[in-house]
Amino acid sequence: MGGGSELPQRGGSERELLLCVQPAKEEESAKTIAELKEEFPNVDVEYIHQQFFYAPQDVNVPQELYKRATYLWTISWLPPTASAAPNLKFIQFSSAGVNHVAKHPIYTDSKIPLLSANGVHGPQIAEWVIMMHLIHSHKYIDLYEQQKQKTWKQDTGRGVRDNPGKTVGILGYGSIGRQVARVATAMGMNVIAYTASPRPTPESRRDNGFIVPGTGDPDGSFPSAWYSGLDKASLHKFLETKIDLLVLAVPLTKETTHFLSTEEFALLNKSNPSGTYVANIARGQVIDSAALIKALESKQISGAALDVTDPEPLPKEDPLWDAPNVLITPHISGATDVYAERACQLLRENLRRVRDGGKLINEVDRKRGY
Amino acid sequence: MGGGSELPQRGGSERELLLCVQPAKEEESAKTIAELKEEFPNVDVEYIHQQFFYAPQDVNVPQELYKRATYLWTISWLPPTASAAPNLKFIQFSSAGVNHVAKHPIYTDSKIPLLSANGVHGPQIAEWVIMMHLIHSHKYIDLYEQQKQKTWKQDTGRGVRDNPGKTVGILGYGSIGRQVARVATAMGMNVIAYTASPRPTPESRRDNGFIVPGTGDPDGSFPSAWYSGLDKASLHKFLETKIDLLVLAVPLTKETTHFLSTEEFALLNKSNPSGTYVANIARGQVIDSAALIKALESKQISGAALDVTDPEPLPKEDPLWDAPNVLITPHISGATDVYAERACQLLRENLRRVRDGGKLINEVDRKRGY
Repeated sequence: MGGGSELPQRGGSERELLLCVQPAKEEESAKTIAELKEEFPNVDVEYIHQQFFYAPQDVNVPQELYKRATYLWTISWLPPTASAAPNLKFIQFSSAGVNHVAKHPIYTDSKIPLLSANGVHGPQIAEWVIMMHLIHSHKYIDLYEQQKQKTWKQDTGRGVRDNPGKTVGILGYGSIGRQVARVATAMGMNVIAYTASPRPTPESRRDNGFIVPGTGDPDGSFPSAWYSGLDKASLHKFLETKIDLLVLAVPLTKETTHFLSTEEFALLNKSNPSGTYVANIARGQVIDSAALIKALESKQISGAALDVTDPEPLPKEDPLWDAPNVLITPHISGATDVYAERACQLLRENLRRVRDGGKLINEVDRKRGY
Repeated sequence: MGGGSELPQRGGSERELLLCVQPAKEEESAKTIAELKEEFPNVDVEYIHQQFFYAPQDVNVPQELYKRATYLWTISWLPPTASAAPNLKFIQFSSAGVNHVAKHPIYTDSKIPLLSANGVHGPQIAEWVIMMHLIHSHKYIDLYEQQKQKTWKQDTGRGVRDNPGKTVGILGYGSIGRQVARVATAMGMNVIAYTASPRPTPESRRDNGFIVPGTGDPDGSFPSAWYSGLDKASLHKFLETKIDLLVLAVPLTKETTHFLSTEEFALLNKSNPSGTYVANIARGQVIDSAALIKALESKQISGAALDVTDPEPLPKEDPLWDAPNVLITPHISGATDVYAERACQLLRENLRRVRDGGKLINEVDRKRGY
């Protein structure tokens, strides 16, 4: 008895701290956090609810906590500098993109591994894309407005063309694009993939990130053709393949900013005069908004579904609201009631990798931007 | 030359007549009809445009034509009796169900093969089901109404639950149900099938009808479980499997009339208190409409998507219009611009079977009703 220095001490050097700054309320993650604590008994967890994605400055995180934190699970909040959080082994984001922190000193001046939540969004965002494409191609808005009039008029459903044999072009063949490909293939569509770098081998076509079981395209087997490049000439080759549904799922980088502009809409129209439908679940800035409005007004494309806009929130006076054949949702396609659960599964997997020495999943290449 | 009796005579005994009484305008089928004529040079084609599906009595088909007709391609119009059309080898319908002619003397008193258009509707109706389910589960109606206000409010998209791990129960595992199964599986859902008769063997699970290439479930490989029966006790076992999306795709028969009524909605609720979503693309009479309204009002089910109602057209004063969480479309889910093309492919295949002696595709069992 006495002394007892051999017993591990609570708060001693072996304890680690997982700091969570999350938009989901603590009770929503309670079950998954409890499971995590059970798997990692040496990890303490502090949970702070950040109400607004857009206002990380409004969340109050005590300095004492980030000074101690070993792991940070966040959506947009970051400590002021890397030296203010000297114990961080990684920062796990619960957003797929990290461009919203690209100017933060931790991004620009530190080497703390930044881990995206790539893969967590696959199913729900793919469902959003398929839903919007079906709403457009089945003329559902007209049918819905007719229902409100309690009117039974079959002509309203005319002009529908279902999807077997149609082509979906997926610009950015990541976890979301791969799940779109899986569902589109099941609907009888032809899939064409576009990636930043060439994918000539089976190995290069694999998805090495987080995949929700039973979804996605782990081996890259759905596309009938692969295109690649970050330059406009490469992009144009892809846009000339008579695409019926164009899905934008690229990360926002310098090269992908205004990737779709006047020239690209003209090319789409030339390749598919009956009208490509454009779905953007990437970032608003990937499309030149003024060029999009012109393309919609001139019917160069048949319509657009946008879950992201430039800027966000889209101001009431923005002309995009009044463009024809545009459906806009307020950046919610990634929402699902099981989001926190899935993001936490990814976080746990990365905690395991630290413990067991494996390669971290979804580490962001700071230079590449994703 | 004179004589010349060896030359085949136009209008002679070798000539056959295909009489088409179709809701599509002649020009819509022009290409496929031309191909058909090329494949069957001995078949003359007469095309009559029937404007309204519901009013076959309004279409004027000269007696001389149906007296001569060898094949009839129709949606609802029929000759008055079998003896009035003594040369008919088959009647190819362009509707999936034939219950709308079940009291016609040709149905009740003749043996002319009646061929349904089963399979032609698979892709587009499955797309309608998936679309409606997504609109409901992604709360799209709220998002759409918000867009009209030019408002960017992310709370509107809350409460979405995506589909991996959810269960779709398909009541009537025909060509439409099979394509729903294919797409639902791609979305990560679990599929449970229900059929009239048991399907215990691989052979019995096959789809022997017309299948649009690349779609459906030719081998019956998607369901994780199969249920069957035409009695309510069998149905109830199926309804107790915690179904998230219940798809009604059964033919309308005596047994399936009001197949879903008060007791069945109560069972669904007991099995899945968070609320089954019901999609009906069969016939309105499969659901007891009064019971459905009560189930919606009491939130026993989370909602319903109806492309068919009882009666049709649904009168303006029908209380179904005012039920909560119901989406109604006017029996249009089968429409697609390639409908006539696909139906004509099936018709051609059946003409080949007559010529080559094969078994006709989609022959209706008059006693069974489909």
